[in-house]
Amino acid sequence: QININRLEQMLSDFAQIGKTDKGGVTRLTLTKVDQQARDLLISISKTAGFKIRIDNFGNIFIRRNGLEDLPVVMTGSHGDSQPRGGRYDGIYGVLAGLEVLLTLNDFNIQTRHPIELVMWTNEEGSRFAPAMMGSAIFTEQLEIETAYKIKDKDGISVKEALEKIGYIGTDKVIGQPIKAVIEAHIEQGPILELNNQTIGIVTGAFGQRWFEVKLTGLAMHAGTTPVNMRQDAILGMAHCIVALNRLALKPSSNDVRLTVGMITASPNSRNVVADEAFFTIDMRHYDADLLADLEIQLRSELTSIADQLNLNINIQRVLSMPAIHFDEQCIDAVRKAVTKNHYASREMISGAGHDACHLSTIAPTSMIFIPCIKGLSHNESEAITTEWCQAGANVLLDTLLILAEN
Amino acid sequence: QININRLEQMLSDFAQIGKTDKGGVTRLTLTKVDQQARDLLISISKTAGFKIRIDNFGNIFIRRNGLEDLPVVMTGSHGDSQPRGGRYDGIYGVLAGLEVLLTLNDFNIQTRHPIELVMWTNEEGSRFAPAMMGSAIFTEQLEIETAYKIKDKDGISVKEALEKIGYIGTDKVIGQPIKAVIEAHIEQGPILELNNQTIGIVTGAFGQRWFEVKLTGLAMHAGTTPVNMRQDAILGMAHCIVALNRLALKPSSNDVRLTVGMITASPNSRNVVADEAFFTIDMRHYDADLLADLEIQLRSELTSIADQLNLNINIQRVLSMPAIHFDEQCIDAVRKAVTKNHYASREMISGAGHDACHLSTIAPTSMIFIPCIKGLSHNESEAITTEWCQAGANVLLDTLLILAEN
Ligand SMILES: NC(=O)NCCC(=O)O
Ligand SMILES: NC(=O)NCCC(=O)O
Repeated sequence: QININRLEQMLSDFAQIGKTDKGGVTRLTLTKVDQQARDLLISISKTAGFKIRIDNFGNIFIRRNGLEDLPVVMTGSHGDSQPRGGRYDGIYGVLAGLEVLLTLNDFNIQTRHPIELVMWTNEEGSRFAPAMMGSAIFTEQLEIETAYKIKDKDGISVKEALEKIGYIGTDKVIGQPIKAVIEAHIEQGPILELNNQTIGIVTGAFGQRWFEVKLTGLAMHAGTTPVNMRQDAILGMAHCIVALNRLALKPSSNDVRLTVGMITASPNSRNVVADEAFFTIDMRHYDADLLADLEIQLRSELTSIADQLNLNINIQRVLSMPAIHFDEQCIDAVRKAVTKNHYASREMISGAGHDACHLSTIAPTSMIFIPCIKGLSHNESEAITTEWCQAGANVLLDTLLILAEN
Repeated sequence: QININRLEQMLSDFAQIGKTDKGGVTRLTLTKVDQQARDLLISISKTAGFKIRIDNFGNIFIRRNGLEDLPVVMTGSHGDSQPRGGRYDGIYGVLAGLEVLLTLNDFNIQTRHPIELVMWTNEEGSRFAPAMMGSAIFTEQLEIETAYKIKDKDGISVKEALEKIGYIGTDKVIGQPIKAVIEAHIEQGPILELNNQTIGIVTGAFGQRWFEVKLTGLAMHAGTTPVNMRQDAILGMAHCIVALNRLALKPSSNDVRLTVGMITASPNSRNVVADEAFFTIDMRHYDADLLADLEIQLRSELTSIADQLNLNINIQRVLSMPAIHFDEQCIDAVRKAVTKNHYASREMISGAGHDACHLSTIAPTSMIFIPCIKGLSHNESEAITTEWCQAGANVLLDTLLILAEN
């Protein structure tokens, strides 16, 4: 059993770093406060006697040696947050992992395989896009030289930011043999809490397709142009959003996650009929065939709305990520750990992207979810209970013990 | 008959001032290019021997004396434009008025009443809000000291801008006795062209109500939150816009002009369900009772949408302008001038606000509309035909002759 008091104390200490007035954190990647969080993690780990390495992308690797020099069992998550984000997103997985290592020390438990705790650089992607950058570099899905050059809105590059906070390490960690990866994370959705379950055994992640839609009409005077003679791009967008919502709620769409989260219009003036409207679609499902089919339906519905309203439409797919199926043995290790601890649980598929998704392309991987209150995440009000906090770390402990063979 | 070649030449000369690459103009009020347009108007008027005065708000008054010192008959419009606006909006009424004065000179025609051509400062309101500012000051609907302090987005005040271009005059023109006001303007809508009519005899202007609507939901993760568990502010806005359009198109709404022209959302991020959406409503009709009734319907429909989608709603009325009924004798003068010239015409109510609306509060007023191609205005593609251009100025000539009693 992990030490819940210590874990909660660490969570509370890290929540001070970049704390917002409403109890969340703003800890954007590679900022001064991110540096402070890194320093604190390293200081605790050093005191505990773990070996620390930092690779050339600022990913921090903290190793507790095994009895033998075998492939590592990896755990961890990210330390950065969204702007005005929550105090558990990411850092919970890092500190639950650290708590596991400290617990193993407490009880003098030796594992056969080494356990490597990782804090990944820039998972959120809010300062430097794309998200999950550190794990993308580690798994060679992204070229480091390309990533170094990406700039934030103030023109500062990733490389400059890494140098500024002194976390551009030299250790070449890439290519180390990995036996398994387990990431603990808050669910960031409402399912577990609604079903009174404490643990989500994560069997994979949704596929994602992102679109950008632009509607073009004609700018006209709002006072002089009869409503039935307009080519109103904002009206077209409204019809599209309503239609997309209907599509998402159809039983045959099988709980697809479909979101219009970003909208803009031009000239965006109170007394001018808009000639341009732009919106994004984020569509996610675990069933690749359904996702492909929904794209066809979506294109046909939006195009016919545009036709009816005499608007031009351009639909661009800007991202396509396949669904991910985690490793059966890793999932089974989580299952066994849950059973041992008698927690109410469900098997579920992550709707969010995580560093574990990238890692699953190079090593057997699974995840452990704990609920968060009302499903709130990317929100300062993000919260968990002590019971959930403890449960997730205990399941992580037992899962890592199974995989690292004590 | 006016001299169409001269009028078209003047329109073309003024269209050079602030010309855009697509054939429109950007001539924001009290800028360098506005100054050039003012200078050109004054230079032509001086050469023709008219008396020029500039009031302390930069409104320019150009007088052709009458046989007797009687109340003036006023005409004119504005010289400023929207950003990337058209080459006829406003300036057509100024130059048609100037052409009338020059034609009277050509034929040595004496009127009993003086005729006063005015170019009003800041009708568009795009640099300094509100619109129709110069005529609002002249008719004492707005305090000059209040208006002086209004700033543009760069922090420059109206007074500073007036001083900078040297058009803060000293002549006290306010309070001069006015017999009648006639403003010529492009329709800025599609009605005349669609009905093959050359002249609009304007009997009044629509009442206006402007609203701001804010919907508040809950920010949630787009990938992890099932669509039926959301409080999605953007979805709510889309339903509201569709419902407002349905309301506008109901036969009982009698061609109300209802526009959502401005929209914003927060956090406006692709993978976050929006917790805030904001939009404006511009609603216009000539029937005050209908407008009041539509406000009740609008509030009830939007509120019930918000309730259904579990959103908070705030509806604020930010502007209410009564419908305007122009003067029967002025309207009749326009009617007679149209009949004399055998132009196809219709009586119509302006959907747009004009300087003439303010002037109608202190003097008998009417307007003359000519069509614009496809009804386009506030658009670089704004265009008119030679025939329409000539017709409008001829009707203005004869209307002014009737009112000024030649
Ligand atoms: N875990 C998480 O919030 N990732 C951000 C990327 C996404 O899933 O939209
Ligand atoms: N004529 C004109 O475009 N006025 C602007 C104010 C309005 O009617 O919206």
